[in-house]
Amino acid sequence: MAESYPMNGGDGAYSYSNNSHFQKTTADVLKTMIDEAIAHNLDNLDVSSPSTIGLADLGCSVGPNTFFAMQNAIETIQTLNIIPENTEFQVFFNDHSSNDFNKLFATLPPKRTYFAAGVPGSFHRRLFPKSSIHFVYSSFALQWLSRVPQELLEKGSAAWNKGRVHCTGAHEEVRGAYEAQYAKDMEVFFKARAEEVVGGGVMVLIMPAKADKVPYSSVPICVMYELLGQSLMDMANEGTISEDQVDSFNLPLYPTSPSEISKFIEENGCFCIEKMELMSTQHRFEGPINGADVVRHLRAGLEGLISKHFGGEIIDKLFSRLEEKSEDLSHLQGSSFTGGSLMFLVLKRK
Amino acid sequence: MAESYPMNGGDGAYSYSNNSHFQKTTADVLKTMIDEAIAHNLDNLDVSSPSTIGLADLGCSVGPNTFFAMQNAIETIQTLNIIPENTEFQVFFNDHSSNDFNKLFATLPPKRTYFAAGVPGSFHRRLFPKSSIHFVYSSFALQWLSRVPQELLEKGSAAWNKGRVHCTGAHEEVRGAYEAQYAKDMEVFFKARAEEVVGGGVMVLIMPAKADKVPYSSVPICVMYELLGQSLMDMANEGTISEDQVDSFNLPLYPTSPSEISKFIEENGCFCIEKMELMSTQHRFEGPINGADVVRHLRAGLEGLISKHFGGEIIDKLFSRLEEKSEDLSHLQGSSFTGGSLMFLVLKRK
Repeated sequence: MAESYPMNGGDGAYSYSNNSHFQKTTADVLKTMIDEAIAHNLDNLDVSSPSTIGLADLGCSVGPNTFFAMQNAIETIQTLNIIPENTEFQVFFNDHSSNDFNKLFATLPPKRTYFAAGVPGSFHRRLFPKSSIHFVYSSFALQWLSRVPQELLEKGSAAWNKGRVHCTGAHEEVRGAYEAQYAKDMEVFFKARAEEVVGGGVMVLIMPAKADKVPYSSVPICVMYELLGQSLMDMANEGTISEDQVDSFNLPLYPTSPSEISKFIEENGCFCIEKMELMSTQHRFEGPINGADVVRHLRAGLEGLISKHFGGEIIDKLFSRLEEKSEDLSHLQGSSFTGGSLMFLVLKRK
Repeated sequence: MAESYPMNGGDGAYSYSNNSHFQKTTADVLKTMIDEAIAHNLDNLDVSSPSTIGLADLGCSVGPNTFFAMQNAIETIQTLNIIPENTEFQVFFNDHSSNDFNKLFATLPPKRTYFAAGVPGSFHRRLFPKSSIHFVYSSFALQWLSRVPQELLEKGSAAWNKGRVHCTGAHEEVRGAYEAQYAKDMEVFFKARAEEVVGGGVMVLIMPAKADKVPYSSVPICVMYELLGQSLMDMANEGTISEDQVDSFNLPLYPTSPSEISKFIEENGCFCIEKMELMSTQHRFEGPINGADVVRHLRAGLEGLISKHFGGEIIDKLFSRLEEKSEDLSHLQGSSFTGGSLMFLVLKRK
């Protein structure tokens, strides 16, 4: 069973809902691209009778980003001439069962034009009945592996990731273990989606990624993971936590690359790639990268995972240490601009 | 918008999940009846292609009762010769958005044979797309009105319910206001379900009810409401709460009767009544009614509602007072047995 790594719930200073502005900004910028993806590709859809269009946000976390995205997709579909009159929309908000669905449901827009349902469970398995979904959306979720690769947890194995928490800067074996886990996950992911998505249905997948030949050490988010590992090692050296705890902790996060993901889609064989664009995220930053912002953002996503392994007491100290280390990230800006670090992927079910 | 009255969440001594054994016991006893309802009525169902059967539990609260009921319904459907091979099942667990869906999702049976979805919202409005549900189940939920009747909240109106919290023992105007609100609610309920349920689809509705000519004052649960009102008035007389607070508090609960509900179903016109049975609940009790048990059960369902109006501090005192008043309920046993106090209703979409 896939493990779950929920975002911070609630309303606090480090909650996901108060720290998902990166995703929100990006969603705004990407809106036009998503609209186009829908308009250009959802054109020969076989709308079932009775005419209900099913939409799913995989890894939706809590609102409001998911609400904006789903409402927008529906409005775009409504402008197309493909849907029978009186078509109804049903939106499935999916995330792990440990996601704060209570909050998601409490904040659902009262004036929504769709029937809402929450679907608990990992997208690394089937979630919906056969051919029931017409539009799949997933934003900043597919970088999560279903689990930490097994080999990384075996002390003494070549992939034992000593002193690090990610494959960035790590041995070849560690990178290989991440790559292999991602390959397994994507095989399952595309197989499940192929069953669920109707013929002509469209998937828009947005995820952190990297250009094919760019090393992890030039990818800003991966450098942050490395600095996180270094911060933890500093704390181990001080005796706050044990070195063994750091060695056995690994982030189940993996930014893919165009050639890699293309291969998985091709192997699956059920989807056509309509668009694959590796975007620069320059527009997300004004001026130099603000370390504090990036760290706060990272904290909203990773605090739960880290607390579970190390205990909650270390969190404040850890993240202020990481903030210090992240003060000057300007050297990363160039590589981020050159290679692009956000993948925009439009797939169509054959 | 309908108001919500969630059951107590969590795992505590007064949580719904630890105090829903009445429902569970009844569900066990009713299992055979439900199986028969499915087997005898879900026979000319038009299973859509692709073959997915949609099931909904309206007012599901948290598990495990809803899980037993839904799994059982699926297993019964699977034994019928009506479903194509490879049919998949999707279960929609519905309750107010204030229901503890996080707990519901966390306790979903891992080995379930259906796709699970949570649907937040009142069943006094549309919840699902047109013709998407094949089997509706609702147990101990339809006695909830969508709101306290408006007239009861207007001081000075003939339906101002002075010194009471229910229509039991109240003025004719109060009873009339409850009746009118129930009529409005049922009109909306059946209209919504008529759109959602496919032709040949079946609804099994189980709810507290009373025989046509039995007065409220002979219905055990209604007597409990009356004793609750008396307990609150005792506290008002002691000065713990104000009399005005009691006057303005009314339970949005209404046990219907066979002739009344038949009328609403007939007015709606989209469902046939396949079975309507007013059952004795004798099997639920061994020996005399245990007041303490009934009170604990009532507390699980009503604590949230009462706290919201009176504040949480009075709860322990109130329910121990109610327990004293409920010590001898043996005089109710006769009427409960004679008239029956649980309605088992099987409807089929025309």
